[in-house]
Amino acid sequence: MDIGDGFSYELRVRYQETDGQGIVHHGNYLTYFEKARIELLRHHGISYRDIEESGLMLVVAEARVEYFQPALFDDLLLVSVTVARIKGAAIEHTYVITRGEIEIVRGFTRIGCLSKDSRIKRVPTWLGGKGDWPAPRSLVKD
Amino acid sequence: MDIGDGFSYELRVRYQETDGQGIVHHGNYLTYFEKARIELLRHHGISYRDIEESGLMLVVAEARVEYFQPALFDDLLLVSVTVARIKGAAIEHTYVITRGEIEIVRGFTRIGCLSKDSRIKRVPTWLGGKGDWPAPRSLVKD
Amino acid sequence: MDIGDGFSYELRVRYQETDGQGIVHHGNYLTYFEKARIELLRHHGISYRDIEESGLMLVVAEARVEYFQPALFDDLLLVSVTVARIKGAAIEHTYVITRGEIEIVRGFTRIGCLSKDSRIKRVPTWLGGKGDWPAPRSLVKD
Amino acid sequence: MDIGDGFSYELRVRYQETDGQGIVHHGNYLTYFEKARIELLRHHGISYRDIEESGLMLVVAEARVEYFQPALFDDLLLVSVTVARIKGAAIEHTYVITRGEIEIVRGFTRIGCLSKDSRIKRVPTWLGGKGDWPAPRSLVKD
Repeated sequence: MDIGDGFSYELRVRYQETDGQGIVHHGNYLTYFEKARIELLRHHGISYRDIEESGLMLVVAEARVEYFQPALFDDLLLVSVTVARIKGAAIEHTYVITRGEIEIVRGFTRIGCLSKDSRIKRVPTWLGGKGDWPAPRSLVKD
Repeated sequence: MDIGDGFSYELRVRYQETDGQGIVHHGNYLTYFEKARIELLRHHGISYRDIEESGLMLVVAEARVEYFQPALFDDLLLVSVTVARIKGAAIEHTYVITRGEIEIVRGFTRIGCLSKDSRIKRVPTWLGGKGDWPAPRSLVKD
Repeated sequence: MDIGDGFSYELRVRYQETDGQGIVHHGNYLTYFEKARIELLRHHGISYRDIEESGLMLVVAEARVEYFQPALFDDLLLVSVTVARIKGAAIEHTYVITRGEIEIVRGFTRIGCLSKDSRIKRVPTWLGGKGDWPAPRSLVKD
Repeated sequence: MDIGDGFSYELRVRYQETDGQGIVHHGNYLTYFEKARIELLRHHGISYRDIEESGLMLVVAEARVEYFQPALFDDLLLVSVTVARIKGAAIEHTYVITRGEIEIVRGFTRIGCLSKDSRIKRVPTWLGGKGDWPAPRSLVKD
């Protein structure tokens, strides 16, 4: 995986994800972003479950969301994620969620790599960094 | 803890817990019940966190909810739990949630005791059963 | 739609849906069931959003879940729903969720039809009942 | 309400709010912030439910969270909110969540005032702004 790599997936808004204003609760977009990161990894042949089983944790260190338009129950959204920056122990992603031509939200997250005992680890080479954490068994060889 | 023991706590409905119908999403009552079980334990001097740290897991095996009236954002609810039955590896609880005089939901759960490696364990004596799992360190001695 | 009608959809477990036991939180299955009902309607050409816009609310009156095996993060689950009974103002569904050959949960819900001002309404004919609520505009004519 | 006004409340982490990493899922802090805003209003004699009933919606336009330490199941957290800025149609809040001496997260939100038909409205005087939206009936007169 490398800077600039991206992925998009379609998501149907669930009833449970709306709130009393009849729109997607603003906290749920972080869950949509999380799913985007996991699907981006899968697209590159990497299972996040295997990463965690190898003892490496990807932990959210910062998140930002800008809300432009509400999304409604049953909306079909396109969630797009891009790798914006990889440096040291951190991976930064940016996100755009759209419904047709309409931009719903933009987002940003910074993820840190930690071992299970909470030590900071450089992003491993198979995630685009310079760290030496062994690749998870699921990693598809190109 | 014994059959018939109970506990009640007050809960303020969060905005996030409502859905597009403007009422508490029906799945959230299971979370309210879960909190009631944990507070019931605490009332008896038992920390559920300590139980899990001791390697004993209390896992939901069955749940039932009957919905009588909707609860709304900001409602102040009274959540009451009672230990209904303890047998073998299972503890059964019943629940009533009210807003003033109005009954909102009634519920039932059956919880099973499992070791971390998923073996069925008899309910320990300190939870009202006949099993011999050691008491968690937090248990207040009477 | 009629008794015996059913539908299945595949669902990938999200990280957010797991809890500290590393398994899907037991309350989330009600959300999976809800999505199954909505997809079943869509499969019959009916948009639940249109139903609510017409002023008819389908409200959960009772729910039951039996939990057989835990589901884990990233599991690919098959969620199946069947219309079990339609009577008066109520529709009953049953559910089975499996991962491959393994049964994860079984469920049951009873849904009531209400007008927006909370009057009980018979299940409309286009949902398999005998009520006369007008069909939503999305309904595909056969 | 005025710039600099603040409020703190104690919150016990629910089991459902943790994820497979055994820590509070990062999206849930936005729900904790939301509850802080609502309790801050209540502390000033204002019911958010009444605000919405008057037709004024307070909608999240931007949110940021920095995560310093994980919070665990059953942790007792102190959630503090401060009004940082009121300008035009927007109210900005900052947040700090601590467990004892330990800082868990810091946050920021920008809220916009909208009428039910989605027109931008200046923050009303009773919320510290210059708009003329009528005060909700719950507002305690000093």
